[in-house]
Amino acid sequence: MTFLLHRWYAAAWNDEILAGEPLYRRILGHAVMLLRDADDTVTALPNRCPHRFAPFDRGVVKDGTIQCGYHGLEFDYAGRCIFNPHGDGKIAPNAHLKPWPLAERFGMQWIWMGDPALADPSLIPDYGNVFNPELKTIRRYLHTESNYELVADNLLDLGHTAYLHGSSLGSRAIIQSERKVKRIGDDVVYELDAPGGEAPPLFQEVMPWYRNAKVDHWMTSIWRAPGQIQQQIAFATAGANRENADILEGLHLLTPETEKSTHYFTALSRAFRKDDETVDRTLYEGGKKAFTEEDFPMVEAIQREIGDRDFWEMRPLILSVDAGAVMARRILKRKLDEERGATEAA
Amino acid sequence: MTFLLHRWYAAAWNDEILAGEPLYRRILGHAVMLLRDADDTVTALPNRCPHRFAPFDRGVVKDGTIQCGYHGLEFDYAGRCIFNPHGDGKIAPNAHLKPWPLAERFGMQWIWMGDPALADPSLIPDYGNVFNPELKTIRRYLHTESNYELVADNLLDLGHTAYLHGSSLGSRAIIQSERKVKRIGDDVVYELDAPGGEAPPLFQEVMPWYRNAKVDHWMTSIWRAPGQIQQQIAFATAGANRENADILEGLHLLTPETEKSTHYFTALSRAFRKDDETVDRTLYEGGKKAFTEEDFPMVEAIQREIGDRDFWEMRPLILSVDAGAVMARRILKRKLDEERGATEAA
Amino acid sequence: MTFLLHRWYAAAWNDEILAGEPLYRRILGHAVMLLRDADDTVTALPNRCPHRFAPFDRGVVKDGTIQCGYHGLEFDYAGRCIFNPHGDGKIAPNAHLKPWPLAERFGMQWIWMGDPALADPSLIPDYGNVFNPELKTIRRYLHTESNYELVADNLLDLGHTAYLHGSSLGSRAIIQSERKVKRIGDDVVYELDAPGGEAPPLFQEVMPWYRNAKVDHWMTSIWRAPGQIQQQIAFATAGANRENADILEGLHLLTPETEKSTHYFTALSRAFRKDDETVDRTLYEGGKKAFTEEDFPMVEAIQREIGDRDFWEMRPLILSVDAGAVMARRILKRKLDEERGATEAA
Repeated sequence: MTFLLHRWYAAAWNDEILAGEPLYRRILGHAVMLLRDADDTVTALPNRCPHRFAPFDRGVVKDGTIQCGYHGLEFDYAGRCIFNPHGDGKIAPNAHLKPWPLAERFGMQWIWMGDPALADPSLIPDYGNVFNPELKTIRRYLHTESNYELVADNLLDLGHTAYLHGSSLGSRAIIQSERKVKRIGDDVVYELDAPGGEAPPLFQEVMPWYRNAKVDHWMTSIWRAPGQIQQQIAFATAGANRENADILEGLHLLTPETEKSTHYFTALSRAFRKDDETVDRTLYEGGKKAFTEEDFPMVEAIQREIGDRDFWEMRPLILSVDAGAVMARRILKRKLDEERGATEAA
Repeated sequence: MTFLLHRWYAAAWNDEILAGEPLYRRILGHAVMLLRDADDTVTALPNRCPHRFAPFDRGVVKDGTIQCGYHGLEFDYAGRCIFNPHGDGKIAPNAHLKPWPLAERFGMQWIWMGDPALADPSLIPDYGNVFNPELKTIRRYLHTESNYELVADNLLDLGHTAYLHGSSLGSRAIIQSERKVKRIGDDVVYELDAPGGEAPPLFQEVMPWYRNAKVDHWMTSIWRAPGQIQQQIAFATAGANRENADILEGLHLLTPETEKSTHYFTALSRAFRKDDETVDRTLYEGGKKAFTEEDFPMVEAIQREIGDRDFWEMRPLILSVDAGAVMARRILKRKLDEERGATEAA
Repeated sequence: MTFLLHRWYAAAWNDEILAGEPLYRRILGHAVMLLRDADDTVTALPNRCPHRFAPFDRGVVKDGTIQCGYHGLEFDYAGRCIFNPHGDGKIAPNAHLKPWPLAERFGMQWIWMGDPALADPSLIPDYGNVFNPELKTIRRYLHTESNYELVADNLLDLGHTAYLHGSSLGSRAIIQSERKVKRIGDDVVYELDAPGGEAPPLFQEVMPWYRNAKVDHWMTSIWRAPGQIQQQIAFATAGANRENADILEGLHLLTPETEKSTHYFTALSRAFRKDDETVDRTLYEGGKKAFTEEDFPMVEAIQREIGDRDFWEMRPLILSVDAGAVMARRILKRKLDEERGATEAA
């Protein structure tokens, strides 16, 4: 296992979990069921009956009650076993479903897969910049058949954009840009400055005032373990006062499904053309295309080549573009070792 | 391996093995070929040439002779190598196919996969109650992608019928019924009594005199290692003399194909409406639907969730409905340990 | 691994590698890319960027340059990294792709997967008899999902032809033929003499003068480790002077793709009807059919039955037809042990 347990993971956007319609999603290898009750409370329970491991998606889950389709054990949305139709009907203490702690923040549900006693919602990083109500935010859920560290590597390096995303997110300006990587606490901060170049095609499309123009383009990405990347993407007319820049606030949240597959949540917020739905659509579809048609096929091909091998034992060549990814992988490795050590000590 | 070797396993219904048409079936992991010769003798041979392991189903098997499709070695239906077209034509002692002992009983072929010296047909349990010529018997062969113990668990617990088989084999009366489980020797005996309720839909259909009526319904199931479950299913008008009951004699024989798949033979016999073929069809199709559309998808989903893990190490919650299944699993476990011990000692 | 490293393996026919169109082929488990430059020089490079293991087939490979599709590293066809678009553009010594030695001989490219210092092209066996410019040669590339030793076994035994290839390459004469197997150095020489019988159907078709005639048919096959089988196939009117025989010179080169799949190169040369393209087509299609519809399905069924087991631990029955195959397997085993020993000592 290469998963940190004592972390909040993005589990679902709020609107993915409808009242009366459970969302079944494997998270860190566990079959999870996300439920919204009539009072709008959301809970995360195992999608697996404790009796004989039947998945509840073969039963009846609605109106605040989960009925196993195999033997009719019933549970409420808090996981309590409330009805045993068999024998004397007694309910054993281990009949209850153990909920995973959830916290609602920024329009999404965050799940804690480790020791519930340690699940402090204040540990969820502050992404208020992205989910600022003054801005217009678009959100996406995507899925890829690759390990979450490979996806984080991809997000932490912008050197690939000119090659993989030439017609969408990349530009020659980015590749020639100056970049700095630094470590602040356990975060990795990646800064890029591309002055006087062209804006990437997708951004020219939604900010036509930068079309065919000299543009100052700069970005800051902050990686946090285990796989959260916040991005500030800025544009200004070349040489103009950067305080008047057009800024997009982006967020990428990676939640391991298994060792070789990842749930991928992204948000992108803007102050410009907030009410123009064509901009929403363009950013939504353009980003989706870049991820699913450009990044994922590449990262998934790499995942297949790696197979079950260890990434470092394959001795990758390190380039300057990898400074952020390597730093992040080292921090993550240390945290995994620490967590394992703490678990074994306890 | 979790298979008992020194047991008779149901291999095929007689009518599955036609003269001149070998039946290829994997049993306890072995590629088996069941053959009927012109004199109606049936033999079980490896479907694998001893020379280079070519499957005989790529050769020519007919008229009492098995010719390997690769090099033309020929065998008779007793497994004797009778022709070596190569070199001096000599036939080495290890060229012969080692037949597995077979015994014909109750209209089916039983196979012994262990030491042939121990293959005593009198060890086949007496299922004369089911295969009573006075009764009308329907027979079925089905197949499921799940371990045979999971299927036996299913058959040994009737608590699931109201949930999984609400429209076919289940009833509220069954779920509220009194049940007793006891051990008699190494058999598990499961008794259920559901007085004054409704008959399950499938039985109302074939015994219309119980439609919309108060019915006394009772059942006895007897499990025998490794996976044989005999059932007596009885109905009588509520409060009437139970000696006049309508009784169905059922049998379920589970033969492992692999660790994760099972051959499933069932028989169901009745004294009522013996000549009415619509009853045959209703019972055949109704039972088939209950197994293949209700039980198997559930048990196969559980098998996938379990994967390669050990059932007990997953710590299932034990309910009263499991009394029989748990008792059976323990007896089977002890027998497996005994057989392994005996093998290692020898 | 059961592959000899210090051997030349057939990698591709020359005409499979077009200028500007790289050929991607997995060889001995490695992702290989075969490239032809404008000067007609062919090189073999890893189809895997040393940076992050992206396959180059997702990049741009043309005009003597290999550009990784992920981060734009560029290489020339000799494997030298010639451009790093990132940072200071420096190129680390381990950024270069390590080419595998190639040698062009007999119209094909031979690859050396072991220590390049030992790659002496003079070690390629002399197949000038087959690739004799006086003869007309047809060539084939085929692929099978089975281990290369199983395919070599098949080629080294002609006892199977009457059974598997009755309507193509086999004859009763072959099965009744006298055969001799001898070892010459580390080669296995297999000789067959079938005088006064019928020619196999495919050969009757292309040499109509042997139709419905008594024919002397003889063959010599020479196996060389790890999997090269040269064949001389001769026909003459029964009793005639064998010096006037019609001779086909055949070659079979087996290159492991993985432990369970094989690249299969064959050539067949003749002096008769050299300019008749219908003969080319008949031999090409007839041989292809025999391999892909007769041999491969059999050998692949055997591969599936064997699975991950060791062939010898399954205790195959040895027949006279296996004399050559067994001798070859033993020589190969010894060579594998020697190579492993030498590697461990070094």
